[in-house]
Amino acid sequence: MTFQFARRIQHAPASFLGELFRVSSDPSIISFAGGLPSSALIDTEGITAAARDVLTSDPQTALQYSTTDGYRPLREYIAARYRKRLGIPATADEIQIVNGSQQCLDLFAKIFVNPGDHVGMERPGYLGAIEAFSLYEPVFDAVPLDSEGPDPAAFKRMINSSPVKFFYGIPNSQNPSGCTYSQDRRREIAEILEGTDTVFYEDDAFGELFFDGKPRRPVKYYLPGQSVISGSFSKITAPGMRIGWMYAPKQILDAFNTAKQAADLHSNFLCQLILSRYLETHDLDSHIKKIVAVYGRQCRLMCDLFDDLMPALSHTTPEGGMFLTATLPEGLSAMTVFREGIAGKVAVLPGMPFFVDGGGDDTIRLNFSNADEEKIKEGMHRLACVINKHL
Amino acid sequence: MTFQFARRIQHAPASFLGELFRVSSDPSIISFAGGLPSSALIDTEGITAAARDVLTSDPQTALQYSTTDGYRPLREYIAARYRKRLGIPATADEIQIVNGSQQCLDLFAKIFVNPGDHVGMERPGYLGAIEAFSLYEPVFDAVPLDSEGPDPAAFKRMINSSPVKFFYGIPNSQNPSGCTYSQDRRREIAEILEGTDTVFYEDDAFGELFFDGKPRRPVKYYLPGQSVISGSFSKITAPGMRIGWMYAPKQILDAFNTAKQAADLHSNFLCQLILSRYLETHDLDSHIKKIVAVYGRQCRLMCDLFDDLMPALSHTTPEGGMFLTATLPEGLSAMTVFREGIAGKVAVLPGMPFFVDGGGDDTIRLNFSNADEEKIKEGMHRLACVINKHL
Repeated sequence: MTFQFARRIQHAPASFLGELFRVSSDPSIISFAGGLPSSALIDTEGITAAARDVLTSDPQTALQYSTTDGYRPLREYIAARYRKRLGIPATADEIQIVNGSQQCLDLFAKIFVNPGDHVGMERPGYLGAIEAFSLYEPVFDAVPLDSEGPDPAAFKRMINSSPVKFFYGIPNSQNPSGCTYSQDRRREIAEILEGTDTVFYEDDAFGELFFDGKPRRPVKYYLPGQSVISGSFSKITAPGMRIGWMYAPKQILDAFNTAKQAADLHSNFLCQLILSRYLETHDLDSHIKKIVAVYGRQCRLMCDLFDDLMPALSHTTPEGGMFLTATLPEGLSAMTVFREGIAGKVAVLPGMPFFVDGGGDDTIRLNFSNADEEKIKEGMHRLACVINKHL
Repeated sequence: MTFQFARRIQHAPASFLGELFRVSSDPSIISFAGGLPSSALIDTEGITAAARDVLTSDPQTALQYSTTDGYRPLREYIAARYRKRLGIPATADEIQIVNGSQQCLDLFAKIFVNPGDHVGMERPGYLGAIEAFSLYEPVFDAVPLDSEGPDPAAFKRMINSSPVKFFYGIPNSQNPSGCTYSQDRRREIAEILEGTDTVFYEDDAFGELFFDGKPRRPVKYYLPGQSVISGSFSKITAPGMRIGWMYAPKQILDAFNTAKQAADLHSNFLCQLILSRYLETHDLDSHIKKIVAVYGRQCRLMCDLFDDLMPALSHTTPEGGMFLTATLPEGLSAMTVFREGIAGKVAVLPGMPFFVDGGGDDTIRLNFSNADEEKIKEGMHRLACVINKHL
């Protein structure tokens, strides 16, 4: 027989993420290609203690079915943290728990995108979002990023040329570029969107990871009823539990909840309880301080090694997050660097899959959170060997 | 602003499942309306011990990102169990881990259904499947169930009248009817499908729960390359971990994996490891024996009470699973029984949402797994009060 797959899956871009996980699992390769937080910075003792508490106190409830929206005390915690950190009036009723914030990408596109609808993206844009959105067959409108965020003139042109269902952006420590929107640019983007029917989708996976420890005001602050924020515990506690959330106006969240229920009924309840218990009994702020101290050092080290060992490359200088992007000297292809890198036992991620409209072969993305300082030194020397022999 | 939702969500049927969970949470109501396994039969001690093992031995791996396909030893376990129990040559490469088997419904429809495509369903059909599939805007072709399975003449008519992407059925202890396909009917359905491009989607949430402890040969036995089976640990270990699987031919599983990755990267890894450790160190067969002994007693009790207290109703007599369906006397509406039941502190589920083409107002679904014998007695007496005052 011939399997009669749907159109959407026939057009799905070949995925790089799965390939990445496979490359990352070869222990002889130092990988800057993946997107893993540091395993050493997961508070395994704290989470183990929380798991013991949950499974001792009421295991029958923890292991039974639960509600689609998620464990209420966890949603209260998330809302309270928005109020405290960012001064925005979030409530638990505006929070839906999901299986990691990747699920927000899928469900949000599912409730908004008809085939052929326009979706705005940063250029370069996050690969996981491109993969999730693509299955709903949108037309991508890519707005180039400069050092302060999406180019305002291009952003205006996009909004004026066709109805755009939503613009998806990562204002804090963008993936892959590592850039952070300036406050002025956030306000400007919000002003352009005001009065239109375009929603701003703010992916905030990295907002807690600024090296200076200072929160940045989200675009949602300037555009409260017309924007959503997706959040993740993967980078600040642990990814393996797959707990993220969507923070959205009630009307959007109702549709989102319908889609979530159809997709998988609810997120794993045991891990919701473990995480909630962990957050009640541990100081997340001081844990995050430890993480950003390490990531800040590792980021600076990587930037310094680029400058010292590969001065022919330019690179972004992140204020936080887990990634930076380097631009290759003219004539050197990212795919060449990727392939020769693998042979030389260092992995970087070619830029092309981040560009929905082509291009990117002169850029590579590097992760600085997962490899420790020794590995970063060794890996950057290996990378320099690959790069410099082409000069 | 006006939110410009996608067409698929505007047409989504209003969900009953969320409402059910809310009703179930009122402790003064005895609920036969939900679909919960018995909390008392979850092996909380065994799972707690497995969680302790996992978090003691390698917590950093358990809490880190992992691969989309799922934890390999868990997939090996599932494949080996198919080989042993059902004599079908499953391999781990044909198994993908998901967030509970509800996610199979979403992802399978996602990779197969273009708007307007035909999807075959049992009549009545499983509500969670109707909700998941509806978001991909299929045309449902409903084939009536008789006591042996889908009516063969109607099944043939469906296959001959338009191309059907897949037929979705629950051959073992169907939800909502409680009926089990006969072996002859399974073979007959497979013969009708052979040579067509229609896939048989076999939802096997209940195949381990036959009261006689004997496995039934799946439709896949007769139609190996053209069928898939979704499975669930929710009913045989614990639902709160949200671990299910899809067992499918390689070509389908590749597309399914692409959709899974876009949907949420991977299922929660901590719970995959806990479950895998639990299955390695505990005898699942003897645990399942305990479950079916209880469910068998509760099912017989419910059937007997129908016969004794409400002889005007007819009901199915399940061989396993968690549900039965009762047919109301002429002129009595299921919605009336539902509403008056809630007032009388007993909840049953009206049949209508299980009928994609209308009807069902003369049927109610009852769950016999979650309430214990005392509650079943009391609840059935309450239900008899509601029913019998209409006679």
